[in-house]
Amino acid sequence: MSDLAGEIAADVAKRLERSKTPIPIGVSNRHCHLTEEHFKILFGAQARPNRIKDIKQPGFWAAEEVIAVKGPRGRLERVRLVGPYRSRTQIELAMTDAKAIGVKPPVRESGDVKGSAGAELIGPAGRLTLAEGVIVALRHVHFAPKEAAALGIKAGEMLRLRCGTGGGRSSVFEDCVARVSDQYSLELHLDTDEAYAAGVKTGDLAYIV
Amino acid sequence: MSDLAGEIAADVAKRLERSKTPIPIGVSNRHCHLTEEHFKILFGAQARPNRIKDIKQPGFWAAEEVIAVKGPRGRLERVRLVGPYRSRTQIELAMTDAKAIGVKPPVRESGDVKGSAGAELIGPAGRLTLAEGVIVALRHVHFAPKEAAALGIKAGEMLRLRCGTGGGRSSVFEDCVARVSDQYSLELHLDTDEAYAAGVKTGDLAYIV
Repeated sequence: MSDLAGEIAADVAKRLERSKTPIPIGVSNRHCHLTEEHFKILFGAQARPNRIKDIKQPGFWAAEEVIAVKGPRGRLERVRLVGPYRSRTQIELAMTDAKAIGVKPPVRESGDVKGSAGAELIGPAGRLTLAEGVIVALRHVHFAPKEAAALGIKAGEMLRLRCGTGGGRSSVFEDCVARVSDQYSLELHLDTDEAYAAGVKTGDLAYIV
Repeated sequence: MSDLAGEIAADVAKRLERSKTPIPIGVSNRHCHLTEEHFKILFGAQARPNRIKDIKQPGFWAAEEVIAVKGPRGRLERVRLVGPYRSRTQIELAMTDAKAIGVKPPVRESGDVKGSAGAELIGPAGRLTLAEGVIVALRHVHFAPKEAAALGIKAGEMLRLRCGTGGGRSSVFEDCVARVSDQYSLELHLDTDEAYAAGVKTGDLAYIV
C-alpha cells in the first residue's frame, strides 16, 4: 500500500472509532468560580465554602453557596459557586442569562477572562464590582490523555458532536474544542442554551461526527 | 443514462442547489397568539390589539400589547402578542423560559396545542387559566411554494441547516420541518435558545446541508 493509501486507511479507521464512542453530556447551569479574596468579601472573612456535591470532572465540586450577579438591566439570583478557589474569579452564564441582565460576555474558553464582561457580585456579607470575568463558555470536550489518544484527538482540536438524536431537536454542535488533561474525564460540556436547543440533559450521550 | 443514474444526477443537482441558497434566520422571542375572547378578558371588552411592527411572514405583526405568563415557579413579564387573532390561544416559549417558571411544554409545530402545557395568563384588565396552549416551537423553515419547488422541497420534509459558521458556535440544526404555503416567505425560525446556541441573530443566514 502506498503511504497515501495507508494514511487514508488510518484516518478512516480513526474516524470510525471516534464515531462509535459515546460521549456523556454534562450541562452546566450558570455558575461562578471565586478567588479566596472575593469569597471572603461576599461571604465574610471567617466563612469557608461548603462542598455539597462532587461534579464529574475530578477535583471540582458544587458548593452550598450562591451569589447574585447584577448587570445594568437586572440581576440573576442563586448563581452557584463551584469550588475549589481559583486564581481569577470567573462567572459562566448562558447567553440567555446574560441578555436578561444586560451584560455582553464573549464566548471564551474557561480561564480566558481578559477583556471579558463585568458585573456586580452580591453575597450575604458583601458585594463587589468585577471589571472582567463574565464569559459564556466555549463548548468543549474533556478527555483524559488515554481517552484522547485512543481516538487520535489532540488538545485544541475542534470537533463536531451530534446530540439529541431521536428527541426532535437533533443538533450537531461544531466548534467544540478538545481539552486534554489527566485532571479530566470524558464529557461534552454544554450550557443550558445549547442543551435546550438540542433537547438534551446531563447524562445523555453525544457522538463525534 | 440509466434511470438510476438519471435519478442520482438529479438528486445531486438538487442538493447542490439547496446548499447554495442562503436562508434568512428569524429569531422568535417568547410570544403569544390569543383568541379574541382571551384578548378581551386580558385587555378589556373594548380593547383592540395595536399593530406596531409587521414581521417577515406575510400577515403577521407584533402588537403593542404584552402579557405575563405565570407558572408554578414564577412569572415571565412582557410576553408580546403577535396578531392577528387565532382560533386557539398559543404561548410560545423557549425551554429556558419554561424552566424558569416551572412549566413543561412539549416541542410542537405551531397550532398543535392539544395536551400541551397550561399556565396562567395575566393582562392589565384580567387574568385567565389556560389548560393547554403552551409549547416550545418545533424549528421550521417557511417556504413560499415557488421557493420550495425550486429546491425540490416538499411540505413536512425534515431538513438540516447550518447556522453561525465562523462565529465560534457553528451548529447544524437537524429536525427542521419544511412548511410550505403561499402565506409564507423564506425563513428559518429559531427560538432564543437555538439562536444563542449557534451565536446567530435575526437576518443572519443559514444553509441547508
